[in-house]
Amino acid sequence: MSTSFHGETSLEPADGDEGGGNGAREVVAALVDSNVEVMFANPGTTEMYLVAALDRVPEMRPVLCQFEGVAAGAADGYARMTGRPAATLLHLGAGFGYAWPNLHNARRGGTPVVNIVGEHATSHLGLQSPLESDLETLAGTVSGWVRRATSANSVATDARAAVAAANALSAGRDVTDPGTTSTGGAVATLIVPADVSWTRRVAPTPTAATSADQISDDNDADPAPAAAAALRSGGQVALILGAGSSSDDDLRAADRLRQATGALVYAETFPTRRRRGVGLPVIADLPFQAEQTRQLLEKVDCAILLDTPEPVAAFAAPGRPGRLLPAQTSIIRVPRHRASSLLAELAAALAPDVRPTAAPRLAAGGDVLSAGALTAKNWGDVFAAALPEDAIISDESITSGMFGLIDAMTHAHPHDTLGQAGYAIGQGIPIATGAAIACPGRPVFNLQADGSAMYTVSGLWTQARENLDVTTIILDNGRYAILDGELERAGGAGLPMAESLINLSRPSLNFVAIARGMGVPGAIASTGIELRAALGRARATDGPFLIHARLSA
Amino acid sequence: MSTSFHGETSLEPADGDEGGGNGAREVVAALVDSNVEVMFANPGTTEMYLVAALDRVPEMRPVLCQFEGVAAGAADGYARMTGRPAATLLHLGAGFGYAWPNLHNARRGGTPVVNIVGEHATSHLGLQSPLESDLETLAGTVSGWVRRATSANSVATDARAAVAAANALSAGRDVTDPGTTSTGGAVATLIVPADVSWTRRVAPTPTAATSADQISDDNDADPAPAAAAALRSGGQVALILGAGSSSDDDLRAADRLRQATGALVYAETFPTRRRRGVGLPVIADLPFQAEQTRQLLEKVDCAILLDTPEPVAAFAAPGRPGRLLPAQTSIIRVPRHRASSLLAELAAALAPDVRPTAAPRLAAGGDVLSAGALTAKNWGDVFAAALPEDAIISDESITSGMFGLIDAMTHAHPHDTLGQAGYAIGQGIPIATGAAIACPGRPVFNLQADGSAMYTVSGLWTQARENLDVTTIILDNGRYAILDGELERAGGAGLPMAESLINLSRPSLNFVAIARGMGVPGAIASTGIELRAALGRARATDGPFLIHARLSA
Repeated sequence: MSTSFHGETSLEPADGDEGGGNGAREVVAALVDSNVEVMFANPGTTEMYLVAALDRVPEMRPVLCQFEGVAAGAADGYARMTGRPAATLLHLGAGFGYAWPNLHNARRGGTPVVNIVGEHATSHLGLQSPLESDLETLAGTVSGWVRRATSANSVATDARAAVAAANALSAGRDVTDPGTTSTGGAVATLIVPADVSWTRRVAPTPTAATSADQISDDNDADPAPAAAAALRSGGQVALILGAGSSSDDDLRAADRLRQATGALVYAETFPTRRRRGVGLPVIADLPFQAEQTRQLLEKVDCAILLDTPEPVAAFAAPGRPGRLLPAQTSIIRVPRHRASSLLAELAAALAPDVRPTAAPRLAAGGDVLSAGALTAKNWGDVFAAALPEDAIISDESITSGMFGLIDAMTHAHPHDTLGQAGYAIGQGIPIATGAAIACPGRPVFNLQADGSAMYTVSGLWTQARENLDVTTIILDNGRYAILDGELERAGGAGLPMAESLINLSRPSLNFVAIARGMGVPGAIASTGIELRAALGRARATDGPFLIHARLSA
Repeated sequence: MSTSFHGETSLEPADGDEGGGNGAREVVAALVDSNVEVMFANPGTTEMYLVAALDRVPEMRPVLCQFEGVAAGAADGYARMTGRPAATLLHLGAGFGYAWPNLHNARRGGTPVVNIVGEHATSHLGLQSPLESDLETLAGTVSGWVRRATSANSVATDARAAVAAANALSAGRDVTDPGTTSTGGAVATLIVPADVSWTRRVAPTPTAATSADQISDDNDADPAPAAAAALRSGGQVALILGAGSSSDDDLRAADRLRQATGALVYAETFPTRRRRGVGLPVIADLPFQAEQTRQLLEKVDCAILLDTPEPVAAFAAPGRPGRLLPAQTSIIRVPRHRASSLLAELAAALAPDVRPTAAPRLAAGGDVLSAGALTAKNWGDVFAAALPEDAIISDESITSGMFGLIDAMTHAHPHDTLGQAGYAIGQGIPIATGAAIACPGRPVFNLQADGSAMYTVSGLWTQARENLDVTTIILDNGRYAILDGELERAGGAGLPMAESLINLSRPSLNFVAIARGMGVPGAIASTGIELRAALGRARATDGPFLIHARLSA
């Protein structure tokens, strides 16, 4: 169901499967025609015709979530791994509200997501019935494209346009469709009133997708000449890599350019998606700490931003600039659809004979596998040593990942990491869920800070229901540790009331019990040996597993 | 913490407690001056100065929630019981998004809530830092009043204006403040940029609240003459009672008018707040099923709406009108601030010698206390018989409450019920949490459908942390039962994929384990005897308790 009350016993019998099909079936079929094959669903009354259509379009796989925040984050995770959008199925404004934060993450990551939101029947709007809200305005605050369907005859076109817009916006292409909003991102929201769903189509099914004049390749000048000139100029160039420039080949091309030209190469902070591990070049993420990033970039004359926004401080600080590049730095922006090809071209032209470097495999973490306590500094070594091949990591480790995790992962088997693209917390469990649906053969690990684990915890239930190979590692330090420094700077350190608000230990959370309540087995680990053993149990378990890692200070 | 990533190590040392105080302290002090004494908090970096201010204004009680949906719903529950707003403390747009659905419920119920939302420093906006969003527009979709603070010198005035607006809007008074939005309701949102929080006030603390010309008594004609005339006319009158006309005295006055004039008397569907129980007149809620309500009201010539909107169908249905009153019905609207006094005046004038009726106490449910299975039809009898005196009930029982619960509760000890004001699910646990904070001497029971329990389940942790006397009864039927009929009408009954989307039994949820994981003890009950025993255990337990009631079909 969904975020709102449902039920109402007065809907007419459905028109079912016969004849032209109703608008609901048109929507689902059009999504499938557009290569959208998974729908993360949390439906209510206004979506029941859409639910009933699912058996009639069996190519669509519905995945039930108990909370829209899970559905939205799972769609994000799915698309980060496949490059293709999944659909969500959300119930009115209330459902959209719960989904908002994880849609924000998708927006910030440029990830394509197609929301199908059931709405009251057109005739019902304006009556101020209990769930009425201004859905367009709400959706517009986090969507790059919004449309309200008006007829069963045209709703298939609307659904195709939504998918086309999500894909085009994600690629960084210009979209001139009237539904395009100023928020950017590649979240497309189609509002489907119940009467559109239940009405039978009478016109022929339209087949045209969004017309070509609504989506075009970037009209800006090709960035290649400017990028090549900068790299040849002798000035300090920084290549900053986003999700569209994060494949193995991209990393190797960037590394070759670094060797050949002296360019700095970094990945964006908390990358939307990136590769890391043995045999790949070692490329650092820009630090979360703004001052560190500012220092790294202080001599940069030209920044080439490959599918990533200009680096700025996450938060303001009194008297310090929010921009982290020097004021005189020239910036070359490269959209997602051009990022990989540009790197390849530049490497071929400027570093034709340079071989990429490759991170070595280190000894298997034996020195940390004592019976000693697990800490924020050593858990990553144990985890990296145990990581199986071809893994996917959903990384919401926050402070627990800031003390050696990334160094350790550099020497693990190559893997994909999906980071905190928009900094809205509660994405770890959903992202892992969606990635596991996207890549059924690959093991998925969710590195989950304790303070943000409860937002979307019901995603564990979906993992159990779908028997997904996801291992959640809760990194329990008993507090919102990332706020410690903040509170000190705000003059609140040592003040009992303020301290209590960043303390999660009264009572402490028992995540093994919580997981068991949703059908996910688990184990507690307080030492390196226990963590390694728990990871072994997780690998031997069919379906999801949760490890509650208790970190000592 | 909050819905977003936090941290950043570069804020300046706070100006602390000395001198004029910073903007953060001004906000908290102004809230306290305006009789806002509880803050349901889920703060992040942009709220750290506000957190640090809490120890300097000890009259404010902060209550930590692990999810903004809990904070918002708790503020709603607190205000429903006290009539005064609590504050929430939310982090940027992401925090506001998670809070949206329960703010929607508060909006629909006319409940005053004051949101304090931390925002990026003014200089930081426009840089498109990771958590930037259009906070005004987002807040405006669910708030009756929105303002962005601009200076530490005036933020105390802003905070006072927020409280004044929430109180005035809740009372149904006209508010002409420029921040008033078209969404109605009494949710007031004050956006506080971090620089306003961290800057020291240099002007004298302003003392004026919102000026009198911004809030006025309703300019409409007093509804008393029209209401009295309608009741005297001989035509069929319906009195429909909302939260502002739900006290014992209100119910008795309405009952006397019913006896004296033949008026129909109903409470709104899923009342925001109402009284019920032994010794009070029996007044039915309007049914959730629209057709039943339409039949009840089909001969009404005049409807007197006492602090409640016109009854309409919750959802549309093909070919049927959404309005439930006959088209020719005249409507008299009575705002909250006038509802009780009007009922008293009308009863005194039209039913001076009529005594109110009183529901009797029935036998203590002995006939249902067999070892037989608990069902949707009998659990309410067991619960009603065991209800202690002076209880508060948060009712999100949904379908499990539609088969005899209300009849049973009519004969329980008198109690307050807080219903699903805006139909957005996930309010049961938070509302109970806030009500328990509001009324520490009273036992609180949350009747919680299983399908909506996971949205805000982390509220159990706050209940444990605050040692609140809340008993949560999970009503487990293993499915989104309210969607059964919807799916059938949509033609989806018996279709395996569609059926799977309203089925929660794969895997089944173990709520006792989930509660234990958050520090809340619990018990399972599958028979009437077990439910009675579990309720006894709950009463004997200091702090919260959870009962997982497994209902048989």
